[in-house]
Amino acid sequence: MSIQIITISRQFGSGGRTIAKQLAERLGYDYYDKEIIDSVAVESGFSKEYIEKRGEEAPGKTTFSYGFESQGVPGIMNGMSSLDFIWSIQRQVICNIADSGKPSVIVGRSSNYILRDRDDVLNAYICADLGFRKDRIVRLYGESEVKPEKRIIDKDKKRAANHKHYTGENWGLSENYDVCLNSSKLGLDSCVDIIYDIVMKSRK
Amino acid sequence: MSIQIITISRQFGSGGRTIAKQLAERLGYDYYDKEIIDSVAVESGFSKEYIEKRGEEAPGKTTFSYGFESQGVPGIMNGMSSLDFIWSIQRQVICNIADSGKPSVIVGRSSNYILRDRDDVLNAYICADLGFRKDRIVRLYGESEVKPEKRIIDKDKKRAANHKHYTGENWGLSENYDVCLNSSKLGLDSCVDIIYDIVMKSRK
Repeated sequence: MSIQIITISRQFGSGGRTIAKQLAERLGYDYYDKEIIDSVAVESGFSKEYIEKRGEEAPGKTTFSYGFESQGVPGIMNGMSSLDFIWSIQRQVICNIADSGKPSVIVGRSSNYILRDRDDVLNAYICADLGFRKDRIVRLYGESEVKPEKRIIDKDKKRAANHKHYTGENWGLSENYDVCLNSSKLGLDSCVDIIYDIVMKSRK
Repeated sequence: MSIQIITISRQFGSGGRTIAKQLAERLGYDYYDKEIIDSVAVESGFSKEYIEKRGEEAPGKTTFSYGFESQGVPGIMNGMSSLDFIWSIQRQVICNIADSGKPSVIVGRSSNYILRDRDDVLNAYICADLGFRKDRIVRLYGESEVKPEKRIIDKDKKRAANHKHYTGENWGLSENYDVCLNSSKLGLDSCVDIIYDIVMKSRK
């Protein structure tokens, strides 16, 4: 079955987003990352900033989130917490992208799980050594008061907790993906090459 | 750095061993799987059957294993349990293979962890969907009284517990490997191709 959709899950700072972007350009596929947040903002009534900040958090830590921030969409959330509501809209946006029939690369947001029943999807996971990631986030996003290692650990912890909460899956466990690559060992370009070759081979 | 050693960790029934063998043949590398058991048997004094059966178990379940089966090697085990003793010999055998300077493919036995400080090693993990693995073990190893699914779960559970006990690592977590491939999705030949290409690229 020819691969039409590629999901790229990634550790923070691993270069997964860059790999996804290069892959989309090389294959001529649509690319979805922040674009998903824009659609969720339109559909949910929440601001982009709120969705970006909270969309990868795990609900447990969100006290008072039940209906508390729902003024923008009265009557729609049906007793769901704001995070549950965002997740359900996000899920629908991802399903719509897949159903559109346009070949696409989708970054993160549990898209591997959401699209698990389709057979035209390749699920990739990009990880990297901690030193590589620390250097990368400082170079790309600048220094901050919080040390790079703590920023990475916090971000990955949130992503893992969010993924576990909504899918039951352990984030980063290789059996949940078709291909997992260490970008600091293999190089970003090689990661693009490997996934590109898999897609091209699926067309034969 | 040119890759001289490839470790292949694998879910039971995923075809990881077949991939490892084909890779070794294609690269002209030495192949180590049961050969490790032979060496551990010589070094430890335990039988091959005992090592094969127990070498992938986790110690917790081995009541009375402290020194209880050590008659074959009096005075050598120094109070270690038989499983700890086997693991330490196995570790030494794997280090000796790597130090020999001969390019090699090594199957399982926590070799990814044991050789983690070398920069000429590529660590691969092969997983596959449960249905594929069930079919495969029945075809390769025949039917048994125990259902295929239970055989797979039991075997993987033991390997995971053994790996966790001796390395602290979660078995199958992608960040502990350089490349993880789903053989039922990609096909065994493609898995061989992908790893082969990575090795060839490392020589440039």
